[in-house]
Amino acid sequence: MDSCVIPLRHGGLSLVQTTDFFYPLVEDPYMMGRIACANVLSDLYAMGITECDNMLMLLSVSQKMNEKEREQVMPLMMKGFRDAAEEGGTSVTGGQTVINPWIIVGGVASVVCQPNDFIMPDSAVPGDVLVLTKPLGTQVAVNAHQWLDIPEKWNKIKLVISKEEVEQAYQEAMLNMATLNRTAAALMHKFNAHAATDITGFGIIGHARNLAQQQRNDVAFVIHNLPIISKMAAISKAGGNLFGLLQGTSSETSGGLLICLPREQAARFCAEMKSSRMGLSGAVGQDGGVGDGQQAWIIGIVEKGNRCARIIDKPRIIEVPYRGSVVSVQEGSNNNASPPEVQQT
Amino acid sequence: MDSCVIPLRHGGLSLVQTTDFFYPLVEDPYMMGRIACANVLSDLYAMGITECDNMLMLLSVSQKMNEKEREQVMPLMMKGFRDAAEEGGTSVTGGQTVINPWIIVGGVASVVCQPNDFIMPDSAVPGDVLVLTKPLGTQVAVNAHQWLDIPEKWNKIKLVISKEEVEQAYQEAMLNMATLNRTAAALMHKFNAHAATDITGFGIIGHARNLAQQQRNDVAFVIHNLPIISKMAAISKAGGNLFGLLQGTSSETSGGLLICLPREQAARFCAEMKSSRMGLSGAVGQDGGVGDGQQAWIIGIVEKGNRCARIIDKPRIIEVPYRGSVVSVQEGSNNNASPPEVQQT
Repeated sequence: MDSCVIPLRHGGLSLVQTTDFFYPLVEDPYMMGRIACANVLSDLYAMGITECDNMLMLLSVSQKMNEKEREQVMPLMMKGFRDAAEEGGTSVTGGQTVINPWIIVGGVASVVCQPNDFIMPDSAVPGDVLVLTKPLGTQVAVNAHQWLDIPEKWNKIKLVISKEEVEQAYQEAMLNMATLNRTAAALMHKFNAHAATDITGFGIIGHARNLAQQQRNDVAFVIHNLPIISKMAAISKAGGNLFGLLQGTSSETSGGLLICLPREQAARFCAEMKSSRMGLSGAVGQDGGVGDGQQAWIIGIVEKGNRCARIIDKPRIIEVPYRGSVVSVQEGSNNNASPPEVQQT
Repeated sequence: MDSCVIPLRHGGLSLVQTTDFFYPLVEDPYMMGRIACANVLSDLYAMGITECDNMLMLLSVSQKMNEKEREQVMPLMMKGFRDAAEEGGTSVTGGQTVINPWIIVGGVASVVCQPNDFIMPDSAVPGDVLVLTKPLGTQVAVNAHQWLDIPEKWNKIKLVISKEEVEQAYQEAMLNMATLNRTAAALMHKFNAHAATDITGFGIIGHARNLAQQQRNDVAFVIHNLPIISKMAAISKAGGNLFGLLQGTSSETSGGLLICLPREQAARFCAEMKSSRMGLSGAVGQDGGVGDGQQAWIIGIVEKGNRCARIIDKPRIIEVPYRGSVVSVQEGSNNNASPPEVQQT
């Protein structure tokens, strides 16, 4: 399971909590803070939990940063984390910061739940379909962006992508990683989800296998479609099957939810994901446009089987287009300057 | 406050949680795990909370360790952490491990409480006395132990202490740091404590000041006595007031609780601390002897004042003797081989 569930001594309640911390993988400290927070909360969302009672922030400041760098970087990262927590309807009331060779950012999310607040990820049945709520390819996009400055790496992929496209793919990846899976968690209840997990370090296939192993019924997951940030499949091929993206082994950071849904509900789930974020926190994007809703895709089926998961031989690659660039929040700016795609709700 | 307290949506309950992580400061991985766990739990104990619903472990493995070192060190550290959690009546059900230049060990402790389970640290009144439940001097002891191998450092202190005494002081410090403040937390309720905090990085005077500032009444804390691990005061003087131990600024790790108690209750509190650990978890040390109970000292008074704290000009130094050496748990040993002083209850 993505979170631990602890039965409490008080009236049928459970404490559900999770922790995650890692090293920065994008250059924008504000976005990195948002991503770290989205990544922590995602473990709750994967259980259909939409509320979080408290977050703690875990940080380390790099000893290699001078004082000016610290003062510029750390407050932005903390602001990003706090803004994402606020978007998730929660707040950060504690934590710890240490000095370390490397920067660390992460946190702890805790919630006290009633039994019907969460969905145990063990009830998939043959006939369900698999839905994915964010495109794959974040690791490829982040690495390709770093390779812009490394000629021997760049030479391997420059025939299939332009520098502008790499920049756009990187922005798209950041945007996706910083997006909360909260709407998906809410819709899991509405559309009677049978099980779910979030896609992170083990890639789509690794997490699909983990989820399959937890099922009570004799099921297998078969993935037919791979929604991937546009051009990342081409980069992966050009680089000699980089990270195993097309085999589903490429790591994702703060990836989407992989959800087992009754077949007749899945299309409506996807439609409602995209329509808006209304209904969760009462807020709708002001522009009603790009980034307001999230895309979700039916990517496979649940059939009878041996609690395993596989991708078919020639999966359909769904090229997910870039939505536009993210306006980075600069020091001293206020919330109104946040990018519309990840604005607070 | 040492922990954050989050009111929940469920029947007057609160979520209380805290996190702490740091770098190893003793050489024994098993004891380091115990110390890290005791240190995390101490923030709950400082609020008079004796139960913990869940712990998460936060770890990093050093990239400088080879595989064999990792396999030897990390399981011992995790075992120490888990054993201390078990002694605290709780268990570790989650966490995360990353690779890092330095080893990190720490955790998160969470509990869902009713209002009378915890004591807000804000109700000291003039006439209270200050009680401390572990001796000071852990930083001096740990450093002196490192200086055994650094001639220019050792030369500064060798006139006041022998190598054997340094070893004993180090063992005593480890033992104290690995001791849970749980008994003290339980007795805070029994003897009507008005406020408490735990002594860690800011030293006794730093934490006394923090606690004074949180008081609702116009009070000041005056410290008359400093219980210090034997010979550590002498080392501090010989080294030119090392770490400011006698001024109360020397860092402690997993230090004792500093508790404001009604004057007429304090002596009984100290007596009961020392008698045994019976009554908390129903267990008494098998040998009934050394290390079974913990010492506590009345170290000062609460008077009318301006929410500040001070140590008097010439405080009485209480030399706290060594109790004997700690038998380190080696790889492959079982719980029965745990040192009696920190055995599971």
